[in-house]
Amino acid sequence: MEKICPGVYRLRFGTPEEMTFTTFREYPAQSVGGDNPPPFIEEDVCFDTSIRGCALTLPQRGEVYGFGLQLRTFRHTLGKRTMRCNADALASNGESHAPVPFFVTTEGYGVLIDSARDVSFYCGQARPKGASRSHANAESSWAPEATDEAYRSELGSGEGRMRVEIPVAKGAEVYLFAGDSMLDAVQKYNMFCGGGCKLPDWGLGVWYRMYGASSAVDWVRFAKRFREDGLPVTVLGLEPGWHTHAYSCSYVFDDKRLGDHEEAFRQLREMGYHINLWEHCYTHPSSPIYEELMPYAGDHEVWGGLVPDFTLPEAREIYLRQHAALGADCFKLDECDGADLTGGWSYPDGAAFPSGLDGEQMHHLLGLLYQQTINQGYPDSCHSVRASGAMASPYPFILYSDLYDHKDFIRGVVNAGFSGLLWAPEIRHAKNLKDFVRRLQTALFSPQMLINAWYLKNPPWDQLIREKNNADEHMPEAAEALRMVKALFDKRAELVSYLERMYQQYHDTGKPVFRALILDYPQDEACQLIDDEYLMGDDYLFAPLTEESDTRQVYLPEGTWQRDGQTYLGGWHEFTCALDEYLLFERVK
Amino acid sequence: MEKICPGVYRLRFGTPEEMTFTTFREYPAQSVGGDNPPPFIEEDVCFDTSIRGCALTLPQRGEVYGFGLQLRTFRHTLGKRTMRCNADALASNGESHAPVPFFVTTEGYGVLIDSARDVSFYCGQARPKGASRSHANAESSWAPEATDEAYRSELGSGEGRMRVEIPVAKGAEVYLFAGDSMLDAVQKYNMFCGGGCKLPDWGLGVWYRMYGASSAVDWVRFAKRFREDGLPVTVLGLEPGWHTHAYSCSYVFDDKRLGDHEEAFRQLREMGYHINLWEHCYTHPSSPIYEELMPYAGDHEVWGGLVPDFTLPEAREIYLRQHAALGADCFKLDECDGADLTGGWSYPDGAAFPSGLDGEQMHHLLGLLYQQTINQGYPDSCHSVRASGAMASPYPFILYSDLYDHKDFIRGVVNAGFSGLLWAPEIRHAKNLKDFVRRLQTALFSPQMLINAWYLKNPPWDQLIREKNNADEHMPEAAEALRMVKALFDKRAELVSYLERMYQQYHDTGKPVFRALILDYPQDEACQLIDDEYLMGDDYLFAPLTEESDTRQVYLPEGTWQRDGQTYLGGWHEFTCALDEYLLFERVK
Repeated sequence: MEKICPGVYRLRFGTPEEMTFTTFREYPAQSVGGDNPPPFIEEDVCFDTSIRGCALTLPQRGEVYGFGLQLRTFRHTLGKRTMRCNADALASNGESHAPVPFFVTTEGYGVLIDSARDVSFYCGQARPKGASRSHANAESSWAPEATDEAYRSELGSGEGRMRVEIPVAKGAEVYLFAGDSMLDAVQKYNMFCGGGCKLPDWGLGVWYRMYGASSAVDWVRFAKRFREDGLPVTVLGLEPGWHTHAYSCSYVFDDKRLGDHEEAFRQLREMGYHINLWEHCYTHPSSPIYEELMPYAGDHEVWGGLVPDFTLPEAREIYLRQHAALGADCFKLDECDGADLTGGWSYPDGAAFPSGLDGEQMHHLLGLLYQQTINQGYPDSCHSVRASGAMASPYPFILYSDLYDHKDFIRGVVNAGFSGLLWAPEIRHAKNLKDFVRRLQTALFSPQMLINAWYLKNPPWDQLIREKNNADEHMPEAAEALRMVKALFDKRAELVSYLERMYQQYHDTGKPVFRALILDYPQDEACQLIDDEYLMGDDYLFAPLTEESDTRQVYLPEGTWQRDGQTYLGGWHEFTCALDEYLLFERVK
Repeated sequence: MEKICPGVYRLRFGTPEEMTFTTFREYPAQSVGGDNPPPFIEEDVCFDTSIRGCALTLPQRGEVYGFGLQLRTFRHTLGKRTMRCNADALASNGESHAPVPFFVTTEGYGVLIDSARDVSFYCGQARPKGASRSHANAESSWAPEATDEAYRSELGSGEGRMRVEIPVAKGAEVYLFAGDSMLDAVQKYNMFCGGGCKLPDWGLGVWYRMYGASSAVDWVRFAKRFREDGLPVTVLGLEPGWHTHAYSCSYVFDDKRLGDHEEAFRQLREMGYHINLWEHCYTHPSSPIYEELMPYAGDHEVWGGLVPDFTLPEAREIYLRQHAALGADCFKLDECDGADLTGGWSYPDGAAFPSGLDGEQMHHLLGLLYQQTINQGYPDSCHSVRASGAMASPYPFILYSDLYDHKDFIRGVVNAGFSGLLWAPEIRHAKNLKDFVRRLQTALFSPQMLINAWYLKNPPWDQLIREKNNADEHMPEAAEALRMVKALFDKRAELVSYLERMYQQYHDTGKPVFRALILDYPQDEACQLIDDEYLMGDDYLFAPLTEESDTRQVYLPEGTWQRDGQTYLGGWHEFTCALDEYLLFERVK
C-alpha cells in the first residue's frame, strides 16, 4: 500500500492496464482533511484473475453512494451497478453517460477503481456458497403482498463484502480515500483529481440555446428581445445548424444559410452575451481537418466521421487549430457518450485507436479527453458535455442528457456531487406552464440554469406547444409566464456571486457545491433515501417541486432553517407552494 | 466450411470455447427445405482477436430480425444489439431474458453465433474509417424538425457489413442457414435444434395462477367455481406460497399453512385440472437436497440458495429426485434470468461453476439447462420459464416476463417466432375492463392463454382493483366481465385442436406457429415494420387491439382474407371493434 497524500492510499493488484483514468491526469493530486489510516488494507481484499479479467472482493461498511451521474438510483447498497457509458440509460443498472468507478459510504471512506473498463460492482451481494447455510431454519417471508421484501429478504445487509469485476484487465490499482467524514472522503477524491473546477460569473448565469434553424439575424433579434424584456441571459447557444455539415461535423460556419455570423457575434458581445457552439468530435469528410486527422483517429467511423484519439497531442493540436478561429467562448460537446437507443450509433467496443486504447476504454475516456482538449484551447471557461468519467473534477464542464424526467433530473443534481461531476437539469419542453415553471425552479438552484429551446422558434414562455410556437402563436398565459421567468432569471443573477464563492471553495477544498443530504449528515438515517432535495453551498437547502403536486414533504437536517422569515427545526415538514413560490431554506448559523 | 445438413453450414474461426449452446444439444439436427448453397463463404468473413475476445465482420444483406425475445424492438437493421440476459430489459439494446445470438434476414438466410457470451451485433454499422471519405461534398441534412433523420443520415444502408463482437472467446463456430425463403431459414434453424416442440392439449388450454396466499381449500373452491361458471380452465398454478421457504426455494410443501395439498390435488385432478408449481432453482439451506447439491453448485449464492450446475448429471439427478414426489404436472421456472432492476440479485458474471462455466456463460445457458432438467423429469408436458436462449426450440416451455406493457407483449409474440421461442403475454392486472379484455384477446391468440392472478384473492373479472378484490368487493361490471371472459375462454378451447395440428407441424418442419408477417412475406416492404399483428398457424392472421383505441389499421398481405363473413384483399384496412369483438382474419385458400 502506497500513501499518495494524507488519507489517500493506493493498492495495486496483479498487472494493471497501461491506460486508465489516472494515466490522463493533468493536475497534480492535492490534499485536504485529516491524515487518516486506510479503511482497509491489502490483506482484507481477495483478488483473482480469470479469462474474463479480474475480480476484487473488498470489505464493505456503511451505505453506498456515487458511481457518477446515476439518474435512476440513489443508494446503491445491495445493488449491482455496471459502469457502462450509455446516453440512454433507462435502467437502474449503473449505466450512465457519466459513469464513475468511484463510490463513497456513510462510514466515511471512498474507493476509486482506476479502470476504464465496464467495471461491475456487486454492492453487498455475491456471497460465497454456503454462507447462508445457517439459515436452514429461517421462516419463509414470502407473501403476495410483499414480493419486494421476498426479493430482498435473503440479501441481508451485504455482510460486509463488495465484489468488483473488471473485464479484460489482469489487475488494477485501487485508491482509498479515508475521510474525516463522508463529505471529506469526497473532498479527498476531488482534490486527488486536482481540485474542483471554478466557474466564471457568466457561466453561472442564465443559458439559452436558440432555435436550430435560426440565422445570424435571428440571433441578434433574440438577444435584443431578452434585453428589452430585462432578462439577464448571459450565454446564447447555437445548435447543430451552424455547421456546413452537422452529423458528422465540419466545424465550418454555414454562412450561406446563416448570413454574416461574425457581425452577429460582434453585436451579441456588445450586448454582453457569451457565445456557445454545439458540436461533437466525429469529424466529417468535408471538414478541413479530415485528411490531417486521419492517422490520429480510431479505426471506425461514427456517422461517417473520424473519431479523434485525443490521447495524442497531434489529434488535439489539429482539432484545436480548427477551433481557434470560431470566435466562440465555449462549446457544447454532444454525442460523445454513444447510444444504444438513439439509432445504435457509436464506434464499437472493439474499435482500435492509434494510442492502443480500444473502444470499450475510449467509451469511458472520451468524455474526459474531449474536455481536456477543449479546456486546453478555451481555458477558464464553462462548457457543456454529454459524457464524463473519473478524474473530471477540475474541468469546468457541465453534463446534460437527452432523457427528461423531472425527478430523474433532480436526482442527477443530487448524485453528481458524489463523484466530482456537475449536472444541468436543462429545460427543453414542458407539459404545461406548471411543469415549465417547476422545472425552471430546479434549474435555477442547480449547477447550470439552461433553457435548450433548439426546436422552438420563439422562447418557450411565449408558447409551450411546439407546433403553435413555431407558428408564432402566443399562449394565453404568455405575459404571466414572462413575469415568472423574469423573477426566476433575476434570482439566478442574484445568486451568482454566492455560487462563485462556493465554486472557489470547491476548487480549493474539493467540497461539492450541490450535495445530497446524506453527504453532510451520514449518521442521519432519514437522509439515506432522500434523493429529491439537496444542499446548495454552505447556506442553502433546496427542495424542488414538480408539476405533480404543489405540496410536498421536506426533510430538514438537524439545526435551524429559515424560509420567508419563518424558522424551522430539523425534521419532516409539509409545505404547499403557489406556482411562483419555491422551497429554498437558509441555514441559521 | 462444413455442411451439417442440407442448406446448413458450419464455419469455424480461431479457437472456439469448449462450452457453447450446441455443446448441450440433446436432439440430433434434422433437415428441412432445400439444399441451398451458403449465403457467404469463409473468405467473405473478417476475423480477428484482441485482449477483449474476438470479432467477426460478416456480409449483411437484407433487413435483420431475430435475436430472441426482444420486447422493445422489431427490425434490427442499423442497430446495436447485445445478447445479455436481463429480466428487466427496458432498452432497445438487445438485452432480454431470452436473448438468442441468431438472426434471419429478408434475403432468406439465418446466422447463429454459437457462443454463450454477451455477444454484440452491429447490424450494418461499424464502418472502417475512410469509408465515407467520398461523402465530402454531401449536403448537411440537419434541421431541428428531423433529428432522427440526422442520426440516421450517415448510417446508410449498412453497406453490407455486420460486426459481431464476442467477449473473452478467441474464436467461435458460426452456423449458416441457407433458406429457400426467410421462413425456411427459420425452419432450418429450428430443425437444426432438433425440431419444434409439441404441446399437449391441456397445455394449449386456459391457465390460471391462483392467489399466492391461498390454501388447499381455496384451490378446490376456485376449481369448483370455474366449473360452475362453465370456464374451461385446464391448468391451475400455485405461486411461491406452496414452499416452506420460497426465496430461495425448499421444494417442500408448507402443509402447515396449506392444509392437505395431496387431497386437494386429487380433487383438482378429478375435475380435470392439471397442476403447475412455481419455483426457481436457487436451493435454500432448509431444502432436503441442500447438502447433497453443494458440490454440484456454483461458488456464489442467490438469495442465500445454491445455484445448481445443471450441466452435471449429478445436479440434475439430485434436483429431479426432490421433484419426483411433488405430484405436479408441470412447473413455472422463475427468476432464472437474473435481474439488475429487481434488487440486483443473481450470481455474478465471474461466478465459477464446477463444470468450468463462468457466470456470464451460465446466464446464457441456465434457462436452457433448467428446461432440459425439468423436461427430463416431466417429459411431454408444457411448462413456463423465464429465461431461454439458443437451441431451445424442442422444449415445451413458454416464456413470460415481469414487464407488462401491452404493446411490448404483442411484439413479444411477433419476435419470439424468429428464434424458436414461445411467449405468453400473460395477464396480471388491468387499468380497466377494456384493458383487461383487450389483453385477454391477445392472450387468447397467443402461444399461451394465461391469467396470473397471484396477488388477487378473487378472479380479476370479479374486481380489477387489487385492494377491492382482496376485500371481496365485486365491481359493477362483474357479470358483464364474466360473460366476455367465458366467451374468450370458450374460443380458446375451440382453437386447441387447430393449435395442436399447428404445433405438430412446428415439431415436424420447424415452422413456427406464431409468426411476424415479414417472415412469410419478406419481399413485401410494408411488412418490415409491422410488429403489432401476426400470423397464427397456416390459416389465421390476428391484429390485437389495445385499450388505447377501438379502431386500428390492419395490414393484410397479398391474398384474400375473411372476417365475419366479409372478404378483404391485401392492403391496409381500418376496423373499429366493440369490446367483445376482435380482429381475427381467416385466409381464403
